[in-house]
Amino acid sequence: MRILLTNDDGIYARGLAALYRELSQDAECLIVAPEIEQSAVGHAITIARPLMVRKARKNGNFLGYAVSGTPADCVKIGICELAGGPVDLVVSGINLGANVGINVLYSGTVSAATEAAILGVPSMAISLDTHQEADFTAAARFARKMAVFILENPLPHVALNVNVPAVPEEEIRGVVVAKQGRARLMESFDKRVDPRENAYYWLAGETELPANEDEDSDGSALRRGMITITPIYYDLTRHDLLDGLKERIKDHFPGFGTAVVQEGE
Amino acid sequence: MRILLTNDDGIYARGLAALYRELSQDAECLIVAPEIEQSAVGHAITIARPLMVRKARKNGNFLGYAVSGTPADCVKIGICELAGGPVDLVVSGINLGANVGINVLYSGTVSAATEAAILGVPSMAISLDTHQEADFTAAARFARKMAVFILENPLPHVALNVNVPAVPEEEIRGVVVAKQGRARLMESFDKRVDPRENAYYWLAGETELPANEDEDSDGSALRRGMITITPIYYDLTRHDLLDGLKERIKDHFPGFGTAVVQEGE
Repeated sequence: MRILLTNDDGIYARGLAALYRELSQDAECLIVAPEIEQSAVGHAITIARPLMVRKARKNGNFLGYAVSGTPADCVKIGICELAGGPVDLVVSGINLGANVGINVLYSGTVSAATEAAILGVPSMAISLDTHQEADFTAAARFARKMAVFILENPLPHVALNVNVPAVPEEEIRGVVVAKQGRARLMESFDKRVDPRENAYYWLAGETELPANEDEDSDGSALRRGMITITPIYYDLTRHDLLDGLKERIKDHFPGFGTAVVQEGE
Repeated sequence: MRILLTNDDGIYARGLAALYRELSQDAECLIVAPEIEQSAVGHAITIARPLMVRKARKNGNFLGYAVSGTPADCVKIGICELAGGPVDLVVSGINLGANVGINVLYSGTVSAATEAAILGVPSMAISLDTHQEADFTAAARFARKMAVFILENPLPHVALNVNVPAVPEEEIRGVVVAKQGRARLMESFDKRVDPRENAYYWLAGETELPANEDEDSDGSALRRGMITITPIYYDLTRHDLLDGLKERIKDHFPGFGTAVVQEGE
């Protein structure tokens, strides 16, 4: 069994080391991770410049490949080029900070797992619900169990987005499958003036659950002390709106160009 | 009516100028766009450094705000800070190159529209299906019609992803509502060696429609000469898998921590 490990906090991050320690007990693990922190890069990929790939070392031993790109880049180049053979599973994390709700779109950690799903490789993103110096033990142990689960229950073209409460293992209240909720950054901008009198802005604000958040969402269950597992993929279509929109578009554009809007097309 | 215009090709891009020319006939338009090209940045946002905002000029006149960030940054700061009042519509584009299928996840153009949807502002991304020097006339004219359509048919928290064939207006075969398909970059990596003998890699490859692509997808309809309109949003959940996964997870993790997996949670 071969696992490709990546993250968005960079190749020397503690969360990635914790993952490696647990998962390498069952499998051959290859680390392909960003050279430097890539938080909030979302599903960015690098096309306008090349990717530099460096063999990173730790205590004199080969640690993995450090890539001058994003987490999605790491998954692409890891699977297509560096692994040198089939990859059975991609695991991304352990992220410092939960990845729930709408914020998932901004997450490099989750996008790495989504990229693996695009490439048809089973995958998981795993995040710990704290931004403080963290104890990754429980999350890493759970990642190992999840790796076994995914290999026994493969779901093609699906990524599992896992979030773990930042509490000792015995205080975790359970494991639930949850939908992506509506937690999001409630942004504000902190305007400042530089020494040359130019304005600049820091994106600020806190992630919040909306007051009417559904109980079966990732953010809600995580807040109640549960590990959450959310199956995600890469289709953004509002399928429920397609038919209604077809009718309205047909009414609105009867004669654009030589256009005839065709039913079912 | 106030429209915020952005793109991912940068504030001086011709596609953005074409949008401005058309849309400013009906509405007050404010340009808030990246200082430099941001292609393939996906839904990245800037949190580790501040955003610099510069008043850009063209022929001595105020053109818009140039932001040292991504398209999603531009929408956030445009709506929350720079517009100085309500925005009725966000339009992102006109992108040089189609944004269909799975590739939509990599698109800064589309992510700007999705960001507007997150913020509850109606939005549209519009892309022209060519990477060559392009004639934006037909696409810009269509964008103006779509702006009217969206304001007459507001869909909260939905972005419309519009793709236009790169042909003269009279050759456009129609306007269809299509789902996001499975067109994607079939990547390969071009490995090279730098003057210091270090390996580096260019992401290469072409975007392809899969052989079994559904006819009602964006990529398929666009290839047949249709303008495509795809309603998208920001929920990646595989809702169809939630129930099955709940059963399997319950079987697999009967005793993690003190966990009791609860039905319906």
